[in-house]
Amino acid sequence: MREVGVGIIGFGTVGAGVADGLLREAELISRRCGLRVALRGVADLDIGRDRGVAVPRELLTTDAMALALRPDVDVVVELIGGTGVAADVIRAALEAGKSVVTANKKLLAEHGAALFALARKKGVDLYFGASVGGGIPIIRALRDGLVANDIRAMHGILNGTCNYILTRMAREGSGFDEVLADAQRLGYAEANPSLDIDGFDTAHKICILASLAYGVTVPLDRVTVQGIRGLNPVDVRYAGELGYVIKLLAVCKAHGDRLEVRVNPTLVPKDHTLASVNDVFNAVLVDGSMTGDTLYYGKGAGREATASAVISDIVSVARHVAVGTPRAAEPLPRIDESPYALLAPEDCVSRFYIRLMVRDDCGMVGRFATILGAHGVSIFAASQHEASEAQRAEGYVPVVILTQPARAGDIVAALTEITEQGIVRSMPFHLCIL
Amino acid sequence: MREVGVGIIGFGTVGAGVADGLLREAELISRRCGLRVALRGVADLDIGRDRGVAVPRELLTTDAMALALRPDVDVVVELIGGTGVAADVIRAALEAGKSVVTANKKLLAEHGAALFALARKKGVDLYFGASVGGGIPIIRALRDGLVANDIRAMHGILNGTCNYILTRMAREGSGFDEVLADAQRLGYAEANPSLDIDGFDTAHKICILASLAYGVTVPLDRVTVQGIRGLNPVDVRYAGELGYVIKLLAVCKAHGDRLEVRVNPTLVPKDHTLASVNDVFNAVLVDGSMTGDTLYYGKGAGREATASAVISDIVSVARHVAVGTPRAAEPLPRIDESPYALLAPEDCVSRFYIRLMVRDDCGMVGRFATILGAHGVSIFAASQHEASEAQRAEGYVPVVILTQPARAGDIVAALTEITEQGIVRSMPFHLCIL
Repeated sequence: MREVGVGIIGFGTVGAGVADGLLREAELISRRCGLRVALRGVADLDIGRDRGVAVPRELLTTDAMALALRPDVDVVVELIGGTGVAADVIRAALEAGKSVVTANKKLLAEHGAALFALARKKGVDLYFGASVGGGIPIIRALRDGLVANDIRAMHGILNGTCNYILTRMAREGSGFDEVLADAQRLGYAEANPSLDIDGFDTAHKICILASLAYGVTVPLDRVTVQGIRGLNPVDVRYAGELGYVIKLLAVCKAHGDRLEVRVNPTLVPKDHTLASVNDVFNAVLVDGSMTGDTLYYGKGAGREATASAVISDIVSVARHVAVGTPRAAEPLPRIDESPYALLAPEDCVSRFYIRLMVRDDCGMVGRFATILGAHGVSIFAASQHEASEAQRAEGYVPVVILTQPARAGDIVAALTEITEQGIVRSMPFHLCIL
Repeated sequence: MREVGVGIIGFGTVGAGVADGLLREAELISRRCGLRVALRGVADLDIGRDRGVAVPRELLTTDAMALALRPDVDVVVELIGGTGVAADVIRAALEAGKSVVTANKKLLAEHGAALFALARKKGVDLYFGASVGGGIPIIRALRDGLVANDIRAMHGILNGTCNYILTRMAREGSGFDEVLADAQRLGYAEANPSLDIDGFDTAHKICILASLAYGVTVPLDRVTVQGIRGLNPVDVRYAGELGYVIKLLAVCKAHGDRLEVRVNPTLVPKDHTLASVNDVFNAVLVDGSMTGDTLYYGKGAGREATASAVISDIVSVARHVAVGTPRAAEPLPRIDESPYALLAPEDCVSRFYIRLMVRDDCGMVGRFATILGAHGVSIFAASQHEASEAQRAEGYVPVVILTQPARAGDIVAALTEITEQGIVRSMPFHLCIL
């Protein structure tokens, strides 16, 4: 049986999971893919620490570059993260004609174009199946399973930390800070949670999915990103009363040659498939021109789930290596150089949830309804909520409005005008509705 | 750009969808897979009828065998169904060294072993991605995405006709015959619905999934199959009141070296992911050793969804053909010749729903509870329902029991004894609970 050599760079959580899986399931993997995937070594600066994995001592090394370049290593698996050493090792491996597997979203976002071009030049694979959705084979689905489909839209819950926080806020009515602190204590959120809760991790992922679905590179800084930091529990409660749950949703949708790519906390109807995706679970709903809606659901993170995705990539790449046919990654044009253009954020059309503190005077509701109407925004539902003591004392009452589909730009213009006219205490808060 | 020739055998619903997709999305497919997939011809006995697809006249032929054997056809797509001509054409194509794509479950169940062996001998592909789950890439997920996972269990809603009928019965409280007649009128059920409603289609599919997950062939006649024909709406209602929906569930689960493979109408808790899979949608929940639960959801049938899966297979096979590396299918041993054995139906353990018409005498409930207990069956919940006039007149009242997990064999033994002792009007009805 043909043997393919694998070197793992990075012995952290995922690296340990991959090493463990390759060693433990070696027999299963051989049986399923018809070749032996042999672990040649694992590199890390700290090889003294116990990682809870039975990796033979002689496989450990502190010299990442040497491992990556060993002649008997065919596939280099980069799991150190970041864009420094990781980039150097990947570049060197590709230059040396080795295929690479990585789960490094940040690196792909920043250096993806150059690395894919290099992989293509060298005729080797650069796989990144674990970068989105952990154990959910969504990248494979887009690449192969839905190959005959024009992708009309993708809606994803792609960040387990945010979904955990939002699920608990909805279930318990708790405040954001409180649940975040709990999530940090439980290891579901980082000490510095910004990448997750400010939506950037989700944005990275939807850019990767967009590249697979539409064949274009969407630069991260061109994506409209709104995270969940400081989400007011009152909005979670009002949404619930109206039949919605709030989810951090990544959207990628084609409108002719315009691509809508954005990340927003969004009200999802409770009977929608995505509404029941709770806790740290992820899901992606893909609307294909032939299949219609298909959904992929599972754990989006965690050692084992991510390691499963990395090993799946290793096996695919190893198959190509074994028969001498790596499928060179195609270099993707930046969106501006492609037939597509990004839809401007203000041109995105959605139904909206708006919460306003309205001056408790006669005719105020009529006035803001008129202003909304003048901006082309129709009201779908409105409800006035009981004011707290403090709110009443200040002379304002909370009102929630759900609109018919409207341009985001028109909503902002209308709300700005309402604020300037002194009808509300401060700029109203609004969220998209799915 | 390298060109790969495709011949479609069968110009029915799916065949027309595949031809249409290949012609309409030719540019998209080329861009995504880097080669041209060229439709060489479509064979059918009736090429006069309008199929609603703009296939150039000169591509149509009535000679299936000649098309399959044309030198410029690299991939033969069998979509006529049945086990006669279909088998002949596939065998001839494989013998001639051509790769084959089919969606023919019946053929795979009956002749799969021989055909896979032939494909392997000839070093060509035999793909069948559309045979389970239509547009849902579940076969790909098991083959590639979850390659490093021991599959602990699979639970699937795999038949759109049954799921449509069960969804409407639950929603409307309608009777089985009435909804079936409606489904037939709407084209969701065949004139002869047996293959669907008696569970055989579902059984075919779970056998295919079992072969992918466990590397063994499970003969169809060894699978415990219970369909939904004649399901009593009263059970749908009682289940609903208790917090469950009834779904036709295919189960494949490993217990050490015993495989549990069965198809049963099953009570699914309303908050379970599978409970929200409604209408003609299918879903498969896969519990992998590394990923934990992942779910795949989408339309399980229909022209476009099935055609999408067939084209996905065609593209994969075409890639292999283009680079000269078809991945020969592995011949699978029959389960009896493998390390696995089938779990005997009576050894399956589940919670059970039992509906009995109990004699309306003092102490009867106590007597059947005692008999259940003697067979090792514990009661989890019990409720007596209001008897109809007729039932009261006959002296029986309906009682529903939910048990703790119990052996199916013990349940049947207990219910038989209860019946023999004259405690109930007739043999109680029971269903599994997920």
